[in-house]
Amino acid sequence: MAKQEDIFKNVISHAKEYGYIFPSSEIYDGLSAVYDYGQNGAELKKNIREYWWKSMVQMHENIVGIDASIFMHPTTWKASGHVDAFNDPLIDNKDSKKRYRADVLIEDYAEKLNQKAQKEIDKAKDRYGDAFNEEEFKATNARTKEYLEKKDAILKRMANSLETENLADVKALIEELGIADPETGSKNWTEVRQFNLMFGTKLGAEASTAMDLYLRPETAQGIFVNFLNVQKTGRMKIPFGIAQTGKAFRNEIVARQFIFRMREFEQMEMQFFVRPGEEMKWYEYWKETRLKWHKSLDLGEENYRFHDHEKLAHYANAAADIEFNFPFGFKELEGIHSRTDFDLKAHEQFSGKKLQFFDTELNQNYVPYVVETSVGLDRMFLAVFSTSLKEETLEDGSTRTVLSLPAVLAPTKAAVLPLVKKDGLPEVAREIIEDLKWDFNVAYDEKDAVGRRYRRQDALGTPFCITVDHQTLEDQTVTIRHRDTMQQDRVKISELRGIINEEVSVRNWLMKMK
Amino acid sequence: MAKQEDIFKNVISHAKEYGYIFPSSEIYDGLSAVYDYGQNGAELKKNIREYWWKSMVQMHENIVGIDASIFMHPTTWKASGHVDAFNDPLIDNKDSKKRYRADVLIEDYAEKLNQKAQKEIDKAKDRYGDAFNEEEFKATNARTKEYLEKKDAILKRMANSLETENLADVKALIEELGIADPETGSKNWTEVRQFNLMFGTKLGAEASTAMDLYLRPETAQGIFVNFLNVQKTGRMKIPFGIAQTGKAFRNEIVARQFIFRMREFEQMEMQFFVRPGEEMKWYEYWKETRLKWHKSLDLGEENYRFHDHEKLAHYANAAADIEFNFPFGFKELEGIHSRTDFDLKAHEQFSGKKLQFFDTELNQNYVPYVVETSVGLDRMFLAVFSTSLKEETLEDGSTRTVLSLPAVLAPTKAAVLPLVKKDGLPEVAREIIEDLKWDFNVAYDEKDAVGRRYRRQDALGTPFCITVDHQTLEDQTVTIRHRDTMQQDRVKISELRGIINEEVSVRNWLMKMK
Repeated sequence: MAKQEDIFKNVISHAKEYGYIFPSSEIYDGLSAVYDYGQNGAELKKNIREYWWKSMVQMHENIVGIDASIFMHPTTWKASGHVDAFNDPLIDNKDSKKRYRADVLIEDYAEKLNQKAQKEIDKAKDRYGDAFNEEEFKATNARTKEYLEKKDAILKRMANSLETENLADVKALIEELGIADPETGSKNWTEVRQFNLMFGTKLGAEASTAMDLYLRPETAQGIFVNFLNVQKTGRMKIPFGIAQTGKAFRNEIVARQFIFRMREFEQMEMQFFVRPGEEMKWYEYWKETRLKWHKSLDLGEENYRFHDHEKLAHYANAAADIEFNFPFGFKELEGIHSRTDFDLKAHEQFSGKKLQFFDTELNQNYVPYVVETSVGLDRMFLAVFSTSLKEETLEDGSTRTVLSLPAVLAPTKAAVLPLVKKDGLPEVAREIIEDLKWDFNVAYDEKDAVGRRYRRQDALGTPFCITVDHQTLEDQTVTIRHRDTMQQDRVKISELRGIINEEVSVRNWLMKMK
Repeated sequence: MAKQEDIFKNVISHAKEYGYIFPSSEIYDGLSAVYDYGQNGAELKKNIREYWWKSMVQMHENIVGIDASIFMHPTTWKASGHVDAFNDPLIDNKDSKKRYRADVLIEDYAEKLNQKAQKEIDKAKDRYGDAFNEEEFKATNARTKEYLEKKDAILKRMANSLETENLADVKALIEELGIADPETGSKNWTEVRQFNLMFGTKLGAEASTAMDLYLRPETAQGIFVNFLNVQKTGRMKIPFGIAQTGKAFRNEIVARQFIFRMREFEQMEMQFFVRPGEEMKWYEYWKETRLKWHKSLDLGEENYRFHDHEKLAHYANAAADIEFNFPFGFKELEGIHSRTDFDLKAHEQFSGKKLQFFDTELNQNYVPYVVETSVGLDRMFLAVFSTSLKEETLEDGSTRTVLSLPAVLAPTKAAVLPLVKKDGLPEVAREIIEDLKWDFNVAYDEKDAVGRRYRRQDALGTPFCITVDHQTLEDQTVTIRHRDTMQQDRVKISELRGIINEEVSVRNWLMKMK
């Protein structure tokens, strides 16, 4: 546990030190759960977005992309259910005036029971074969069982109460368990009430004429309201998909885990419109295809697993997460949801417009069913970044920090280094940059000994270092060093473009999905 | 005048019909001054953004890009001056309860005087040489002069009153001119008052603990607050630049002209940090460089002009617009501003943090001066789209609609068309797509006669049509048709990639800036 925490802390500090992620408005002491992407983070994020877009839109004849605005007509969110049912249960402490998520307070309590049970087991393991006797074993066993059963009962009761909107019972549960304000210890609680997670704002001048708007809490609805416009103007035939990337906003009360859960975040979503009755086929297809996409990045097959939802959202008839092994354990990275015709039908009802497709093969009008794939861009970033960050012990016993990002995603593809700052080597290095920069992001670095520069580029995640030395002046060759193997090859300057392109091109990486 | 309006209407309807731009949430009757980019618009917008990013970031060793969040610490907007001084003067009609921008009411009145003067001149021209005598000429001349002088006096008085925050005089002017509510004719007006253009929202749950946030009205401040983080972690040396693209929001009361002025829009900004005293050199450099970038797109050199600001914003010591010839006349497309050290000093003052650079050459600490280049992505879109849309009369007297987008920006680079839907031609067309799609956005089209398909791709802006016919089966050649010239060449399938790449690659287009 402690080790996981250390790894995560290291990820966060490396992200800041190397210009990947800064706390938002840091000079003003930051803004909770909001982050800015720095000079390398912006490129990595852009490259992930592009890798997704190309695989979804450019590669699929029957998928197109759109870019809908963040502001949408407020009725959209009535239709989607977000106005009525996109809530967190909150509770205030009357003494401290602090506000908490009631479900998180209870979950934290349950987690403590879980840890107690774990401790009993660990203790028993330590003493096993020692002075450990049957009586002690039974007692340990009984305590462990008691803790775990109590934990399960608590979570089950909470889930039922939230499900049935019995908020009074959620409060009762908090009081029965004697849960206190984690900061002050006070048990003087208000009622539990629902708090909507959408950010509101007002369009137009002042109260009397202003229109209440929301910042979209998901990009999906921007696709649904444009379904017919895209289908008709693009002459799309079912099955077809509409993809979109863009910002979404959720007023999370408890936002944690760095960029894993932010109040402002970016989604990459695709809604695939299919014939009613064929949705399970496509659901399986997209589960498999999306997992293949993730695996094409070579972050380790063991870091992915499916989690099929048992409890389904009101709009879904099947749902699964692709979970990733983050520094804090397996968590949702992408969701694949069979959303039925819920959204389109709801928009039909609220807008009074028909949102149907005429299927010439069936000679029939219908509201299509929808299979959605939805991945958090920031989560993808965290998955890629945290998995790539490694401390390696080298053959000579020294260590190096290397950010072994997939080369296709790396912010800078190559650094060009003159061995020394004289004899015309910097000029040759710059000539190489002038030539390569039309095709790749390349950097120049002349400060410090070349070994230190290699280490810096390793930590930055740059796949190639190209070193210009005195031999270069004679035979137009340079050394090219590979970040991950640290192998150095002597090659002609004229070969550089081809060598780099081979390793970094989107084309070659996507080919792995074939 | 009428013709300009027709052209503009045509632009808007073409944008919708061909999947470029839809009114936002159209099924709910839209949201005023907010638009969604459709399947072709999303690609065009993305390509413009990428063309800008590559020219600014990838091509410049000393410019890096970031991606700061839309939410920023609210003190940012105190420091920048937006909380106090980012206002529109509004007036309400007491009878109709309608709200207007006071300055727009007055400007509309002035425009009517202008039109009256124009009419006098036109009338005189029509009658010239006819029954037109000297007396009439003098009278016409006098009336024209009177109208124009009155117009100028009105605009001057309004500008002064707004400048000195004399809102009572703005109201007095409206009353003296007898300006009525354009919808109802009522002259029963409230006082004029200032209305802040920032959208507000609340972070956190409910009133008592919530923090007031703004949606950023410009992306520039995200760069300024990150100045030191980027400079230090990126080891940047002055002069250097930080670039960013992203959404910004302004609660415009009167938003007009399609996507020219929207409430939600996207900026592409670069802040270039320089030594104090060297800002004018860089200001001239960036004026020239940015104009070169625009001209590289071949939209016609005559469509650009500089407009140097006489009246400068509080933060600037020099400012110019690159104006473009939109369907409604020359208007601002990009701004180049010498912002001095205003922003960084303001953030120093409000944050208490030093935002300085240690210049090793001068052996001196200073707050850098800033030269900004700021272009509206949506305006760029409108400039490119409206200029590219043409009605052509062909040699045979027929007409065609062609969207002659710069090939580097076109959403789809090539459409592959089987001449007929049989004899294995569709299969060969699909094979070509399977091969090209790794490198370009390509489309398949088999519906209707090939001539109609050419016209459709012309209207969509696709630079190339590749037609597979019976000869293809024999010798592996196809015809490739060029959108603008309509010329058709017979080429080998294996040559297609090279031919297309030559015309569409960002590299080749940016080379024109050399």
